[in-house]
Amino acid sequence: MSITPLPPLDRRQAATAVLAAKKRTGVRWADLGKAIGMSTEWTTAALLGQHPLTDDQAATLGSALELDAAVVEALTLPPVRGKDVSDSSEPLVYRLQEVVQVYGSTIHELVREEFGDGIISAIDFELELERVPDPKGDRVRVTLNGKFLPYRTW
Amino acid sequence: MSITPLPPLDRRQAATAVLAAKKRTGVRWADLGKAIGMSTEWTTAALLGQHPLTDDQAATLGSALELDAAVVEALTLPPVRGKDVSDSSEPLVYRLQEVVQVYGSTIHELVREEFGDGIISAIDFELELERVPDPKGDRVRVTLNGKFLPYRTW
Amino acid sequence: MSITPLPPLDRRQAATAVLAAKKRTGVRWADLGKAIGMSTEWTTAALLGQHPLTDDQAATLGSALELDAAVVEALTLPPVRGKDVSDSSEPLVYRLQEVVQVYGSTIHELVREEFGDGIISAIDFELELERVPDPKGDRVRVTLNGKFLPYRTW
Amino acid sequence: MSITPLPPLDRRQAATAVLAAKKRTGVRWADLGKAIGMSTEWTTAALLGQHPLTDDQAATLGSALELDAAVVEALTLPPVRGKDVSDSSEPLVYRLQEVVQVYGSTIHELVREEFGDGIISAIDFELELERVPDPKGDRVRVTLNGKFLPYRTW
Amino acid sequence: MSITPLPPLDRRQAATAVLAAKKRTGVRWADLGKAIGMSTEWTTAALLGQHPLTDDQAATLGSALELDAAVVEALTLPPVRGKDVSDSSEPLVYRLQEVVQVYGSTIHELVREEFGDGIISAIDFELELERVPDPKGDRVRVTLNGKFLPYRTW
Amino acid sequence: MSITPLPPLDRRQAATAVLAAKKRTGVRWADLGKAIGMSTEWTTAALLGQHPLTDDQAATLGSALELDAAVVEALTLPPVRGKDVSDSSEPLVYRLQEVVQVYGSTIHELVREEFGDGIISAIDFELELERVPDPKGDRVRVTLNGKFLPYRTW
Amino acid sequence: MSITPLPPLDRRQAATAVLAAKKRTGVRWADLGKAIGMSTEWTTAALLGQHPLTDDQAATLGSALELDAAVVEALTLPPVRGKDVSDSSEPLVYRLQEVVQVYGSTIHELVREEFGDGIISAIDFELELERVPDPKGDRVRVTLNGKFLPYRTW
Amino acid sequence: MSITPLPPLDRRQAATAVLAAKKRTGVRWADLGKAIGMSTEWTTAALLGQHPLTDDQAATLGSALELDAAVVEALTLPPVRGKDVSDSSEPLVYRLQEVVQVYGSTIHELVREEFGDGIISAIDFELELERVPDPKGDRVRVTLNGKFLPYRTW
Amino acid sequence: MSITPLPPLDRRQAATAVLAAKKRTGVRWADLGKAIGMSTEWTTAALLGQHPLTDDQAATLGSALELDAAVVEALTLPPVRGKDVSDSSEPLVYRLQEVVQVYGSTIHELVREEFGDGIISAIDFELELERVPDPKGDRVRVTLNGKFLPYRTW
Amino acid sequence: MSITPLPPLDRRQAATAVLAAKKRTGVRWADLGKAIGMSTEWTTAALLGQHPLTDDQAATLGSALELDAAVVEALTLPPVRGKDVSDSSEPLVYRLQEVVQVYGSTIHELVREEFGDGIISAIDFELELERVPDPKGDRVRVTLNGKFLPYRTW
Repeated sequence: MSITPLPPLDRRQAATAVLAAKKRTGVRWADLGKAIGMSTEWTTAALLGQHPLTDDQAATLGSALELDAAVVEALTLPPVRGKDVSDSSEPLVYRLQEVVQVYGSTIHELVREEFGDGIISAIDFELELERVPDPKGDRVRVTLNGKFLPYRTW
Repeated sequence: MSITPLPPLDRRQAATAVLAAKKRTGVRWADLGKAIGMSTEWTTAALLGQHPLTDDQAATLGSALELDAAVVEALTLPPVRGKDVSDSSEPLVYRLQEVVQVYGSTIHELVREEFGDGIISAIDFELELERVPDPKGDRVRVTLNGKFLPYRTW
Repeated sequence: MSITPLPPLDRRQAATAVLAAKKRTGVRWADLGKAIGMSTEWTTAALLGQHPLTDDQAATLGSALELDAAVVEALTLPPVRGKDVSDSSEPLVYRLQEVVQVYGSTIHELVREEFGDGIISAIDFELELERVPDPKGDRVRVTLNGKFLPYRTW
Repeated sequence: MSITPLPPLDRRQAATAVLAAKKRTGVRWADLGKAIGMSTEWTTAALLGQHPLTDDQAATLGSALELDAAVVEALTLPPVRGKDVSDSSEPLVYRLQEVVQVYGSTIHELVREEFGDGIISAIDFELELERVPDPKGDRVRVTLNGKFLPYRTW
Repeated sequence: MSITPLPPLDRRQAATAVLAAKKRTGVRWADLGKAIGMSTEWTTAALLGQHPLTDDQAATLGSALELDAAVVEALTLPPVRGKDVSDSSEPLVYRLQEVVQVYGSTIHELVREEFGDGIISAIDFELELERVPDPKGDRVRVTLNGKFLPYRTW
Repeated sequence: MSITPLPPLDRRQAATAVLAAKKRTGVRWADLGKAIGMSTEWTTAALLGQHPLTDDQAATLGSALELDAAVVEALTLPPVRGKDVSDSSEPLVYRLQEVVQVYGSTIHELVREEFGDGIISAIDFELELERVPDPKGDRVRVTLNGKFLPYRTW
Repeated sequence: MSITPLPPLDRRQAATAVLAAKKRTGVRWADLGKAIGMSTEWTTAALLGQHPLTDDQAATLGSALELDAAVVEALTLPPVRGKDVSDSSEPLVYRLQEVVQVYGSTIHELVREEFGDGIISAIDFELELERVPDPKGDRVRVTLNGKFLPYRTW
Repeated sequence: MSITPLPPLDRRQAATAVLAAKKRTGVRWADLGKAIGMSTEWTTAALLGQHPLTDDQAATLGSALELDAAVVEALTLPPVRGKDVSDSSEPLVYRLQEVVQVYGSTIHELVREEFGDGIISAIDFELELERVPDPKGDRVRVTLNGKFLPYRTW
Repeated sequence: MSITPLPPLDRRQAATAVLAAKKRTGVRWADLGKAIGMSTEWTTAALLGQHPLTDDQAATLGSALELDAAVVEALTLPPVRGKDVSDSSEPLVYRLQEVVQVYGSTIHELVREEFGDGIISAIDFELELERVPDPKGDRVRVTLNGKFLPYRTW
Repeated sequence: MSITPLPPLDRRQAATAVLAAKKRTGVRWADLGKAIGMSTEWTTAALLGQHPLTDDQAATLGSALELDAAVVEALTLPPVRGKDVSDSSEPLVYRLQEVVQVYGSTIHELVREEFGDGIISAIDFELELERVPDPKGDRVRVTLNGKFLPYRTW
């Protein structure tokens, strides 16, 4: 019976290998984004398994991170969205969830007043993270930018 | 046996009454924020039960919304954070949760690289929502702005 | 202390009242759709609390169903999407969920092959239900029609 | 003690191997369906582990996809329905679930009015997926076609 | 503002009223089945809210049980299947669930061997319960009788 | 450090090996039951890991199925009841659960009327599955036969 | 429309009334057991809604506790087993659950060794609670006494 | 890179090895208890991973059970309490949980009456299991013996 | 049929009334503790429903808080421990749970090293909360003080 | 195809190796803390995977514990907070959770009275564990010390 040619790594294992390589090489997320001409945020998400990467993008990132060929190949697999590398009990991620719990109804009401019946797209969507210097302690500004999608009626 | 003087309304019921009064009076969230000198977003969250309101703030908002005295009194109760008026299966709120699921690890990694070991505060925190005109369909920009808090070591 | 003017009914109670009125009056969902110039499916969903209704639409439907004024007013409240009148253990609804469990990956793969990385919108979306006569037993054809939304890259 | 002759792969692993082979060979789901004289949708579902495949069907599909003999053998195992390759937090699959949450009661009521007390079969059932060209963005039409099954009384 | 004419009782409340009336009148489930020409089992299930009852059936059962008019009317509402009057932690119901847990795979395998790929219908289905005298303690025989439904291929 | 002599297979793995061997050898469940003088149903359940098998029974079944010695030894381990080989989202097993959800209260009430306060044993219990020919489509009759156990009072 | 004669109290409400009456009258559980000729433990469980009470038993207990007629009537309703008056997060009840978690496998193994394949009946079952004086602090001895039920084979 | 010297087995694997060795050697739990001068019940629980064992105890038990050195070493690891070798859906363990559900409130009330505000310790606790001969079928007596701990006030 | 004399309020409702009265009267938790000669922390917990209060304690606290007689009576009911007035998604309470998640294993290991096999009692337990002035922002010190309870062996 | 250079151990496996090495070497948590100039509590938490360790800290601790190089390297990976080595059903950890359930509302109210609207930081936080000698049995004092963070308003 022959040996089955299964892909040697999946996207989650590739993300773990990327984190290890990033520590080893000292390259920064912003450098990786520039290498493929994409934003830092999108590139980070893609390397963590949340977006697809083309063969060219994977090869370029593989060179920058000195990744093994098997990891580069795994980076071209379909993304595994929704289940994150970070656990929901991870303290930083939990606080983002708390923001949704505390301010979800506020965002809902403000969108309903301003735009009408619809949602903020999580697909036609951009995320940006910036450091905001502050004498009382620097701050993190996370910008969620999504297209308003009105409910179709028919 | 005497009748117990329980408070006539809780914060959730007050939030429901606020939404009904807002529809009846046609006042906007931004107007309510201006009336008490606070941002639109904080004021909306407070009226929906997520933040405390002083007696003065509640009275001013009560006048603007033509609220009954019982509702005004209920608005001064402690907030009931964490459980939102909106359900987590509500489509707009779900998409915010999906953003946390898809981008939580990305935000975690970018913060770890830029700031080190710590979290984004959901307490020393501001939220802003803006309409971004776009010829392909206007967009919603939600800005999360929280202080970076480094883990204490001892 | 004055009595708080809470809205007398919410959207779920209005949906229950609509079902009772529909049985009493014998009017059909298609008739109700025609009365407001909308499809049968959208109108049914709206009356069951899943879509907003304007004051005019609610008034027209209220006349057709001989609804009480309090129910008509409740029909103009914001929709309460996501939590259905039917329970998920309801046998017909469960089988729809089973279809998603069994065929979800198939739909995902076929969309990925044909359209690329993205989703089927549940917002820019139409639903149609038809009876398909069949000598071996009539069939139900449910058509889900949603816009393909490609993932934005940035 | 002898080595136990366990089957080398299960249906889920076979599905993973099929996806890898499909990427490698560039063959399309529709071609695979034609190769065994079945619809694209049924064939995709079967290769993803949701339907049984005969020895002949597995052999034909194995040739088209250049599958290893161990994968071909695994494709003839009983299906593993209900637990999908895709996770329920996968964004495309979640939107299908949201459709069931939002429109489940609507479908239930329309079936009850038109057919009486019963369900839509998920067994005597066909699924079809089509691309619908649209100048405002192409659309996906998913057709669910199930036999109406009336409740037996006795 | 007029009073909303909501139905005074739902099917679950009607079931509770039926149980109280059955205790008061001493009538047996078998008598109630005979009164409407249906089996004991179907009639019990219908009175407990699991099947629809026509106006005539409800009136006949109402007479036999000396039910109030409001209860009779509630019995004609659509059934509320899936959520039982009994809790799943109720010891008798729990043991039925245990039977499914212990013997579910056995039934699945035996059906697959004998009938092929398909399911036992829970819709085209009859239930019968009999007392089986036994010197070592009488037994309960519950017969589940459902049509085999083969999976459609297309 | 010596190698720990752990048992090479557990009951679940043995069940998987049995299913593979049954397919390979073409032997039927009924034949296996006859080989050890037990019913088809009990034997199937035992081979699927739900009942204990003696050394003799395991050896006889091992010969009939041409099982490896390691599998035969694993068949003599204690049963792993309650967690089935089949998942609860498996469509056939789900429909059995639906029967418990829909008819659980009916069975409870009929037992209470006929026998008094007690339960149907799932231990002093037999299961039988038969094919019932029917011109409109053959049916499956599953007979649950359990001793009535009255609650002890003290 | 006439008023529906629903039973004024259910078993849980009756249990609450019993606890209040017990505090008011100062009667002890043991006294109540003696009044109906049953053990303290069974009587307590029955008054808390876990066992049925005859009309005579309920009347006797009602006299001892000076219960209102509506409570006495409610005590004759069928028991509501499985869902306790006490919550599972109640500290005393949690420790009983912990005992099952920590010692469940031990009890299972000891029964399997001594009795063979079977269970300890929770139906043909008695519970006894005693105070055990101890100079280091008195102890509680809870005795569970259930019939061994061997698995039937067939 | 050197090989990490991880412990070859954990307590759960050791428990599995103990069960296999016990079957092979035919030694009884009572013999094992006597070998280390502890009760049968405590010894069984300890060997199943619920209590710590000293090096001496592990060595003595290892000899009696002819255990491999790796298993003996694993037996000296800290206990893994709370998660049992037996699953909670295991029928015998489930019935113990049912006893807590049905009689938890009874035990709570009887302790509150007899001892006051406090709990039964699950730490200063002993368990004993005995066979009780009975002409109608032998019974199992499980004695739970825990110190009463009064709530501290301060 | 007479009216059932149910207690007018339960412990949770009493806690809500206490919070309203505390706001109205401006009395502090420390004052209430002094009034009954108990610590601030125990008294707060007791008034929030987590500990029993004697008739005298309830009367004294009722005078201080100007409580209605019905609330005072409710305060003497048994405590309802385990389910808190605060929700677990409440941000302050959640952070306490996070402390248990992050430091639970640390506390476990340190206790095991220092004391041996056992637990920290949550019954023979005191809680103290203090304000710790700090130039960088005042701090909260919560002291958990519980008796070490060694596991009994037998 | 080359072999992927995945990190040989993760933080949880490193924690397990640390516990084994600690038993082997007999070193105490306090010694380990002193070796890197940190508190016993922080060092224990860090070695159990809850805090980051620098290369120097990991090397020093590796020497003290005679750890393999692969374990030392794994100790420098990012922490895996939130999911503990100890299970939540572990008896000692459960009692800490019970403390949060029973006293969470008390801590919340006392903080609200003393500090106003805000939380106790779990990030700017210290934990200390001490043995408190007591003639009635030594006690454990766990001190939680977190900065009060007031809610920002804007």
